[in-house]
Amino acid sequence: MSQANRGVVYMGPGKVEVQAIPFPELALGKRKCEHGVILKVITTNICGSDQHMVRGRTTAPQGLVLGHEITGEVIECGRDVEFVAVGDVVSVPFNIACGRCRNCKEGKTGICLNVNPARPGAAYGYVDMGGWVGGQTEYVMVPYADFNLLKFPDRDLAMDKIGDLTLLSDIFPTGFHGCVTAGVGPGSTVYIAGAGPVGLAAAVSAQLLGAACVIVGDMNPDRLAQARSFGCETLDLREDTPMADMLEPILGDREVDCAVDAVGFEARCHGHDHSHEQPAAVLNACMDITRAGGQIGIPGLYVTEDPGAESAEAQHGNLSMRLGQGWAKSHSFHTGQCPVMKYHRQLMQAILFDKVDIARAVNVQVISLDDAPRGYADFDGGVAKKFVIDPHGSVAA
Amino acid sequence: MSQANRGVVYMGPGKVEVQAIPFPELALGKRKCEHGVILKVITTNICGSDQHMVRGRTTAPQGLVLGHEITGEVIECGRDVEFVAVGDVVSVPFNIACGRCRNCKEGKTGICLNVNPARPGAAYGYVDMGGWVGGQTEYVMVPYADFNLLKFPDRDLAMDKIGDLTLLSDIFPTGFHGCVTAGVGPGSTVYIAGAGPVGLAAAVSAQLLGAACVIVGDMNPDRLAQARSFGCETLDLREDTPMADMLEPILGDREVDCAVDAVGFEARCHGHDHSHEQPAAVLNACMDITRAGGQIGIPGLYVTEDPGAESAEAQHGNLSMRLGQGWAKSHSFHTGQCPVMKYHRQLMQAILFDKVDIARAVNVQVISLDDAPRGYADFDGGVAKKFVIDPHGSVAA
Amino acid sequence: MSQANRGVVYMGPGKVEVQAIPFPELALGKRKCEHGVILKVITTNICGSDQHMVRGRTTAPQGLVLGHEITGEVIECGRDVEFVAVGDVVSVPFNIACGRCRNCKEGKTGICLNVNPARPGAAYGYVDMGGWVGGQTEYVMVPYADFNLLKFPDRDLAMDKIGDLTLLSDIFPTGFHGCVTAGVGPGSTVYIAGAGPVGLAAAVSAQLLGAACVIVGDMNPDRLAQARSFGCETLDLREDTPMADMLEPILGDREVDCAVDAVGFEARCHGHDHSHEQPAAVLNACMDITRAGGQIGIPGLYVTEDPGAESAEAQHGNLSMRLGQGWAKSHSFHTGQCPVMKYHRQLMQAILFDKVDIARAVNVQVISLDDAPRGYADFDGGVAKKFVIDPHGSVAA
Amino acid sequence: MSQANRGVVYMGPGKVEVQAIPFPELALGKRKCEHGVILKVITTNICGSDQHMVRGRTTAPQGLVLGHEITGEVIECGRDVEFVAVGDVVSVPFNIACGRCRNCKEGKTGICLNVNPARPGAAYGYVDMGGWVGGQTEYVMVPYADFNLLKFPDRDLAMDKIGDLTLLSDIFPTGFHGCVTAGVGPGSTVYIAGAGPVGLAAAVSAQLLGAACVIVGDMNPDRLAQARSFGCETLDLREDTPMADMLEPILGDREVDCAVDAVGFEARCHGHDHSHEQPAAVLNACMDITRAGGQIGIPGLYVTEDPGAESAEAQHGNLSMRLGQGWAKSHSFHTGQCPVMKYHRQLMQAILFDKVDIARAVNVQVISLDDAPRGYADFDGGVAKKFVIDPHGSVAA
Repeated sequence: MSQANRGVVYMGPGKVEVQAIPFPELALGKRKCEHGVILKVITTNICGSDQHMVRGRTTAPQGLVLGHEITGEVIECGRDVEFVAVGDVVSVPFNIACGRCRNCKEGKTGICLNVNPARPGAAYGYVDMGGWVGGQTEYVMVPYADFNLLKFPDRDLAMDKIGDLTLLSDIFPTGFHGCVTAGVGPGSTVYIAGAGPVGLAAAVSAQLLGAACVIVGDMNPDRLAQARSFGCETLDLREDTPMADMLEPILGDREVDCAVDAVGFEARCHGHDHSHEQPAAVLNACMDITRAGGQIGIPGLYVTEDPGAESAEAQHGNLSMRLGQGWAKSHSFHTGQCPVMKYHRQLMQAILFDKVDIARAVNVQVISLDDAPRGYADFDGGVAKKFVIDPHGSVAA
Repeated sequence: MSQANRGVVYMGPGKVEVQAIPFPELALGKRKCEHGVILKVITTNICGSDQHMVRGRTTAPQGLVLGHEITGEVIECGRDVEFVAVGDVVSVPFNIACGRCRNCKEGKTGICLNVNPARPGAAYGYVDMGGWVGGQTEYVMVPYADFNLLKFPDRDLAMDKIGDLTLLSDIFPTGFHGCVTAGVGPGSTVYIAGAGPVGLAAAVSAQLLGAACVIVGDMNPDRLAQARSFGCETLDLREDTPMADMLEPILGDREVDCAVDAVGFEARCHGHDHSHEQPAAVLNACMDITRAGGQIGIPGLYVTEDPGAESAEAQHGNLSMRLGQGWAKSHSFHTGQCPVMKYHRQLMQAILFDKVDIARAVNVQVISLDDAPRGYADFDGGVAKKFVIDPHGSVAA
Repeated sequence: MSQANRGVVYMGPGKVEVQAIPFPELALGKRKCEHGVILKVITTNICGSDQHMVRGRTTAPQGLVLGHEITGEVIECGRDVEFVAVGDVVSVPFNIACGRCRNCKEGKTGICLNVNPARPGAAYGYVDMGGWVGGQTEYVMVPYADFNLLKFPDRDLAMDKIGDLTLLSDIFPTGFHGCVTAGVGPGSTVYIAGAGPVGLAAAVSAQLLGAACVIVGDMNPDRLAQARSFGCETLDLREDTPMADMLEPILGDREVDCAVDAVGFEARCHGHDHSHEQPAAVLNACMDITRAGGQIGIPGLYVTEDPGAESAEAQHGNLSMRLGQGWAKSHSFHTGQCPVMKYHRQLMQAILFDKVDIARAVNVQVISLDDAPRGYADFDGGVAKKFVIDPHGSVAA
Repeated sequence: MSQANRGVVYMGPGKVEVQAIPFPELALGKRKCEHGVILKVITTNICGSDQHMVRGRTTAPQGLVLGHEITGEVIECGRDVEFVAVGDVVSVPFNIACGRCRNCKEGKTGICLNVNPARPGAAYGYVDMGGWVGGQTEYVMVPYADFNLLKFPDRDLAMDKIGDLTLLSDIFPTGFHGCVTAGVGPGSTVYIAGAGPVGLAAAVSAQLLGAACVIVGDMNPDRLAQARSFGCETLDLREDTPMADMLEPILGDREVDCAVDAVGFEARCHGHDHSHEQPAAVLNACMDITRAGGQIGIPGLYVTEDPGAESAEAQHGNLSMRLGQGWAKSHSFHTGQCPVMKYHRQLMQAILFDKVDIARAVNVQVISLDDAPRGYADFDGGVAKKFVIDPHGSVAA
């Protein structure tokens, strides 16, 4: 079966194009993938971490096919696939995992040892993540399909809720993981740094986990309004007021129980002078306002090399962390890619039984594949939307 | 300070009376309790476990002052009390705990080693639980007050939500503990055996924990209707249909992820012939319908001696458990009194921030102290209500 | 590649024979197993649970090839095998697992959903466990080899320590799992019910976990002597002394922190009159002597049907458990097959770095395949040995 | 009862003296401590964190009575003390805790909310830790005695093992906490940064937890020899060899499973040029050599202000952490004072049942109170000893 295929391609800093690309094969270079399947992509989302590449903050090569948030229908199975069938509608975790190494067996699928020769962990369409072709395309190959894929139990119900379910491939589990590692539970007060899609997904996750009060901080008023639309409190970080002073009228307390850093290395200081990046600004703020004994979940990406950083220190990934502040408060810090598989099944259940409206919370906007470049531009401009590409026009208006 | 006091007194099987009783002292017999406080009781609830005594299923002595679900205002502090003050409005965990023994230090306040010479664990107004005077009274003494009491941060807000907050002393944490030990989390499917107040509190707790679907089973149609009123699915166990057959149309599955036994030793078989007690019936049903790998939380009370049981085996606390069924499914079983202190603070927060409507779910009905005997009778008759005694008329209509 | 093969075959109650059997194929009936490998068996152990079948306590059919404790060398790989190679020396977990279902992904490989059509969980050479051919043979097929197998890092070192490493397929992890689920940790006092190989492996595991004092109970004086040989305290359960009275001089306490039931459903009462089975005897004893708040690990097998049981109740798997005793003490109970894969890698490391002498503790005796029937008989007679079959004479004397 | 008392007093950078000090009262300034006891000090140890003060790296005031590692005999009880009696021999956790606040109830006794007006957490004889008088004295007051004290069950046995038991007040639990938070368990490979007393205690703890291989790194050859004396592997960090290259011949692997930072903010780079402090050197090295998915326990102290630091950044507690390295490996980081009470009972049991030789491992040397200043000087000079002060000559030679 060989067909045409098209995808979103990185063409250099600030530039993405929709181009014809090869139809996927059950292979990665010389590596056979008879354990893989070919998907017809139903939806595939633009992610904030794609922006790091598109902004030129990484060494991503020109020609890289983007996209790691994929939902699709199986149209072909490798001969070794046993429990997935043609016609299944499935969610694809953005982390590629073999299901057979020590880390996968421990549930740490974000750092699989067998899918990236360079280092533990892989993803579709991402620099330094193993070379797997991205999924902002019409068709894509998913390896180790029996292990990786989450099948939706009912096709019609899945298509009805596709705007929610499409978020299972990355940001919903990623936000949820941030909350879980921050120790969020029933009755918690939670601070979420960042009101982008991951931050909003973390906020929804905190609510699902039973948090008493979820407070989201950002400098973008549209995104803060979006956070308030589903019951969050917000901190406008353009103001110079100390954060503890902003928390007090909300909580009757100057500290939260838990904090989630959904910003990462492109952090800025808050207050009126936020023009400069200060990569440790969010982490240091989280230590300031988290109670002694609290945990800090860090789903926001920190990098080992950042050639585009302002300081020489930051260019080599060194942050000026005020760790003594955290040490005095017995904080713990939890980093890394979300192991999506640990959470996607349970979050799917929450969606299918109508317990959570994640699409509404992150403000999903469905666009065509051809509109992807404009989606990238708008997202980079800070609109409070999550762009979901619908390459085959499968999603009902 | 010596005043009049009145309380609900057990007067023999089927009989409770409101009588004059002594005003509390900071002592239990010869044991000084300078670490204690005297509370003016604001609310105090009738509990299903009180019914075990009142039905004559225990060796409770005539004259025992009942009541272990207490919320009140501090009117006097022992000289050693340091962090609680006169005027504080507080919730009292039903388990009395010293805060100084190995078990308390491990958070196992339900089995404190220092408050009951007979065995680990104590409670107010309960047979074999250390002899502490019950709290279905106007005034009551609470020992180790700095450790035991949960102070509500705002008095007015507390009085506004007193119908919810009064449930923090026992049934809300108890239902929550059942769910936690059953492993309920976001996306879980949960079976709750029993739609009495603890069962309904467990159902609310499962929702707060993010469960995808909560299914409550009982034989009492009013209680089942109450469960449906806040979004639960229900199984009417008067029907002879196998439970798995009832689950399938709800879940698309014949098993749940988690089960909570909120019934205990007075269990009956389901189906039309449920006239006889069969103490292991609920546990065996939970094993049948819980998936392999699941956990079973058992907040429902099982006793060491049950003189009123139908069989000689059951009279000595022996149940005919089909443990091999659970073993084949790698089940785990979690028993015992809820350690209220582990949960009451966070559940208070969920109430104060409007995340949970526990009073509405369990159908709180506030009654006067004089109406307590009628409350006992109605509750024993199976009404779908939770009776909250208001001995001083403090609660707004 | 087709060769001769021989194996230990169940021929009816009390009777096993070494017979010619087919050379293994990469299939189970019509089910293709290209994910599997063929092993030349290096060692394969006789297990207490084999005895349940051989004693006629199960519905095992005549002709069943026995053996689920397997260590071997890979001599052929199915085409889908990617990370295991011919020549690898490997340990095989006794539980067969696909690595792709919900339970396997959660680490619950003892209840895999894809390897036994009858119910969750499978094993080699065992009744009702999926029909997979046993491994007390010269050659055996292992499915889902990439997932299931644990490769020893160095072949020579592996052969030097083969008497220890052979125990990784079942009893060392099984005993360890019993201790982990019982909550054993540094400083714990632990009671192990049963001094058979699993009980002794649990005792060694408790020591490895840092237990302060490990106490083993049995009625077989040779096995108790074996337990003492590596530093355990022992209780001789032929005596009528109450167990708490026996504990006191050892511990200065009448209760232990943790208990492990390494006996299972063929339990007997202790004391001079132990001629009759009483399936709940061990569980009830564990509740009696475990402190309030303790956990009880139950690696010992309990069955759903036991046609050979003495009472009608027990024939249907119903035990007369005194659960109220455990409830009063807030005990939890942890059952099921050990998920070997959760532990085998770390226990291998403990062996390879000389931190544990498990072979000496359980008294490994290596025998030839032809001597297997005598090994069964001796083991059934209660010798304090663990028989390890060496079908190819690979093990140095 | 008023008697003479003497203690070790900080008299300015580099200078400690034994002076007459007041006999303790059951009070701290105006705060009454009827919950406290007076101890006759049996042993009290010099700690590496005392050295931070004595070296002038803190704002400790002249006149401060030092010492937070205390073991003693109760000679007087406040009137509110109920479960401790005169004559009890007890270990005192270095963290002072009320047992009544939210953090204490959660087991976080290192950050008690009620014992230090300045911030959560207190200790005896330490700058900014609440003003409680230190215990390198003949007599000392311990508040909240029922909660804080660990009673040794047998006085004679306690005196026999006093060299081990004296380490329960701080370094044994602190090292153990480092290992627990690093995820050390049976079969782990562990790197311990620092071979001072806490590092050695961490190494012993790792062994007690069942680690397969414990590797200790330092630049002090005597301390490394001490680590080897009880079975550790060592890395001599004066060498320029990359650490991964040093690990490989030991482990057959270039990474460890777990790492513990027992150095803290006075860290230096390894290699021949280690003359300069580089506060993040140890943390960055731990990230380099810990496997993806590993945890890093940080019992070593990091401070909020360090006026004596070499760089302006470090003076304000800012470290140049390469967090992106840890993020890529999904590391977690666990900081803070050890909550001693969480561990001291179980570690006492391990000592009393002869499972651990902590005194020998850290090389305890008992000295008189008058020799304390020389002990400080020798310890600062880097001798591989743990100095234990015996103020009353109670310890047998």
